[in-house]
Formats: sequence, C-alpha cells, structure tokens
Amino acid sequence: MIIGTFGPEGSYTEKAAKQWNETAELRYYDDIQDTVDAILRKEVDCSIVPVENSLEGSITLTLDLLMERQLIIVGEEIVKVEHCLLSKGKISDIKMIMSHPQALSQCRKFIKNNFKNIEVRSAMSTSHAAKLASESKEIAAIASYDSAKIYGLNILKKNIQDVNENFTRFIVIGKKIPIPSGNDKTSIIVYLEKNRPGALYEILGEFAKKGIDLTKIESRPTKKLLGDYLFHIDMRGHKEDEAVKGTLEKIKGIAGMLKILGSYPIAKSP
Amino acid sequence: MIIGTFGPEGSYTEKAAKQWNETAELRYYDDIQDTVDAILRKEVDCSIVPVENSLEGSITLTLDLLMERQLIIVGEEIVKVEHCLLSKGKISDIKMIMSHPQALSQCRKFIKNNFKNIEVRSAMSTSHAAKLASESKEIAAIASYDSAKIYGLNILKKNIQDVNENFTRFIVIGKKIPIPSGNDKTSIIVYLEKNRPGALYEILGEFAKKGIDLTKIESRPTKKLLGDYLFHIDMRGHKEDEAVKGTLEKIKGIAGMLKILGSYPIAKSP
Repeated sequence: MIIGTFGPEGSYTEKAAKQWNETAELRYYDDIQDTVDAILRKEVDCSIVPVENSLEGSITLTLDLLMERQLIIVGEEIVKVEHCLLSKGKISDIKMIMSHPQALSQCRKFIKNNFKNIEVRSAMSTSHAAKLASESKEIAAIASYDSAKIYGLNILKKNIQDVNENFTRFIVIGKKIPIPSGNDKTSIIVYLEKNRPGALYEILGEFAKKGIDLTKIESRPTKKLLGDYLFHIDMRGHKEDEAVKGTLEKIKGIAGMLKILGSYPIAKSP
Repeated sequence: MIIGTFGPEGSYTEKAAKQWNETAELRYYDDIQDTVDAILRKEVDCSIVPVENSLEGSITLTLDLLMERQLIIVGEEIVKVEHCLLSKGKISDIKMIMSHPQALSQCRKFIKNNFKNIEVRSAMSTSHAAKLASESKEIAAIASYDSAKIYGLNILKKNIQDVNENFTRFIVIGKKIPIPSGNDKTSIIVYLEKNRPGALYEILGEFAKKGIDLTKIESRPTKKLLGDYLFHIDMRGHKEDEAVKGTLEKIKGIAGMLKILGSYPIAKSP
C-alpha cells in the first residue's frame, strides 16, 4: 500500500496519512494538485489531501480539483492542528516567518500581536517552511510539533493558532467506493441552472423529505460567470442506502449536473 | 468624500473605488483588515474591499470581518480583472514572480506552463507586487495594466489569467444603509443551530414562499467546531421592502442568529 501525501515529512497531511494507514509506504508531493494527480498517474494506491479547516474553511483548490478531475473519495481523517513557532535560533534572531498560507491565516492574530515589521512569507507547506527554517536562524516556521524533531528546530512557542480548537479534515482519494460500513457519508457536487430561484430549496427539500442529514454545503464558482455556483454537498449515508440512492436519482432529474464523489466511513474526531 | 482602499496605487480595489466615486479622495491601506478598520477608526467615509472573484470564489477574510466587526454594506462594484505579467526587464531576466495569492491562483496554469523552477512569492496586493518589481529586473509582478504605467514596468504579456472572463466583486463599507433604489440587494449572515437537520431548508423555504431570489449562499466556519457553519446569504430586494422585511422577521425567529449587513443598489456588470 502506497499513499501519496502532501509533503515534505512532518506535514499535517502526513499525520492524517499515518492515521489512515499506519504501515503504508508514504510518497511525498510538493503541492495538492500533484498529490491528487499521483493517483491518476497510478503512482500510488491512494492520496490524502486537506479539504477543510475549522478556522479557515475549505481548501478551495481541493474542492476545485474534485470538480475538474475524475476522482473517488474513499475516506476521511480529522487531525488536530497545533501550530508551533519553530526556529534554529531564538525569537530575537527572527527576521522572517514562513508557513503555508492557511497556517499563516490561522495564526494571523498571533503574528500581528507579536511580530511587527517582520516579513511574512508563504511556503508550499508547513513542513516545507520548517525545512527552510533549518537552513537559517533568521527564518522561523509555523509548523507541527513533529516538524521540530524532523528538522532539528527549537520550539519557541506552542499552540500559537488564534483559536485553540483547530482541526483539519482530510480526504482520501482512492480507486473504488468502499461498501457500506453502517456509518457513512456521501459527497456530491450539484450544479443548478443559473437564474432559477428556489432550485437549491427544491434540492434541499428532497433531502429533507427522506430525513437525510446534510453535514456540509459549500458553494464554489463555476469559473464561468460571476454569481454562478456549484454546490459541494456532504450528507450522512451511503450512496447504496435506499434513501440516499432514491434521493440522488431524483436530484439527477432536477439539477443541471450531479457528480457523485464517493461514499466512505465517517471519521472519528480525534 | 474620502474612500479607504486596499492599495497601493494601481490595485483593482482602487479601480473599484474610482468606479464607485470618480472624484473622491482615496486613502490607501496595506491589507483588507486595515482598510475595513479605517471606517471604524473614522479615518474615511467609506472603505472598499474585494469580496468575491469569479474564478477563485470568496475572499474569506472579508467574509470573516463582516461577521467579526459591526459593519454596514452600502454598495458593491464589479471590476473586470485582466492580469498582466509586468517587469522592468525581459522574460529571460525573471527569477521570481510575485503577486497577491488570489491573483497567483487565478494564473496558476499560466505560471505552471510557462515558468518551471521559478520562485513564486505572495505579495500584500497585486499593486504592491508591481511596486516591488520596479526595484529589480529579476522580479516580475502579476498585476493590472494600470500598475505598469504607475510603476514604469514593461507589459510582457496581457490577459494571463487561466480563464478569460475574470471578474471581482467589491463591497463598499459605509455608515448608513441607503434608501431603496428599486434594484437592491440585501446581505445577511445566518447561524443555524448545529445538528438540526433541515434548518437551512426551512430558512430557504421562507425566501421561496415570498419569491425572494437568492443571489449567493456561502458557508463559513464558526471557528468553534469543525462542521459548524455560518451562512452568508445575498438576496434581491431591500430590507425595507415588505417581502424582505417580513421574511427576515420570520428568519430571526427560526435562526440561532441573524445579522443584517445592509441593503444596497445592485452593481452593473462592466
């Protein structure tokens, strides 16, 4: 079993991959797109990428790739995110703070309150920032506790995210929709024709009628017109469950487009 | 009339500000938060910030500030975004490409296809990137046509965004909700209690019953729990219109929280 993960070593995505399968071989990719495409290139058995964070919301690149590519979601993992400020030197040495843009956003207040006039720079991933910080005392990284050990960095401050409870949800992209486990989730993308008021209401009505609980609704632009959206919807249940199956059939008739991304066991909160 | 705008000179936000009021004095701020807070600090009469792009979706920082601060939306503007690759030198001189993260995302394919192994770095704004590019031949900026003139840069390539039709919507934050113009939009934020299936359906039903057309629904995390969301909803109509007024009253009774952000004339597409 080979898992493609958004790297390098020490990333939160790696943590999610180990949570998903402790013994699998990991292969590290530079960005989310490359991690996802590794499964299409048949280099890996599955790929793990972040999809949503409790502070910053959706990782929109992941959502857009789910629309653009032919991918199957086969699982999800939730990881508690505890950012640390890491550096080879001391706080007084720091001239630049680097991290992934999402992590920088999650620590926006910490940076604003503690580091005025210090350059803040985006890195490809939190662990990539940690790797760069290992090359200069002047660079501090915002990254995981694990990254400190891997890259030989001092932990200058722990738990620096603006809100203590910070979780990221990851999805596992694989080859085959797993059979029902009894506690599943189904992910779809729906396109409703533009300028048809009430279309979303109609769609939600189909779920309500069957008592299907929606765990997420997120709009994304179609990238064609301003104000034209796709909806990413997650619901409880497996696409082979009678209620879900029947409802998706109905929605197929109402919606301009329905893409079923997969059904998979609901992750436990860590 | 003084307008606070996300600067420096040459930004798309400045273009929106000039579209909103040609003769007003502009005051430039470094980031979106500072631009928004300028109105709370009473430094300006109104502030203009981006809220949504047709390719990349919502500017989530703006949405989150609308929740966190007490702000009033008094207008909107739509600007056509035509990114250019700008530099003091030639394409062969370029060692780094800089721009705002949203602009970098909008030109992701262009960069990937034309510049392998070139450093891509985030800047505070597209015009800030242009300013930095004016200091070194090795830096190219992705910024507006206007920025080329302002910072004395060569236009190496025009219209480099991945999709030709690229629009950004801006909101005007002001002091007083304008009176109905006859063609208005109202923006609200709704919080539905978690784990109450069908609550969104119920809310949308109230709009559907009165024939109120929703132009946007976007979920944002509450930042408390993973899977707990607020909904930003835009609808046609003014909050003083009878149908809208009555519906908002009803929703107030159903929702855990209702925040009315403002009513304002609908912008013309450029």
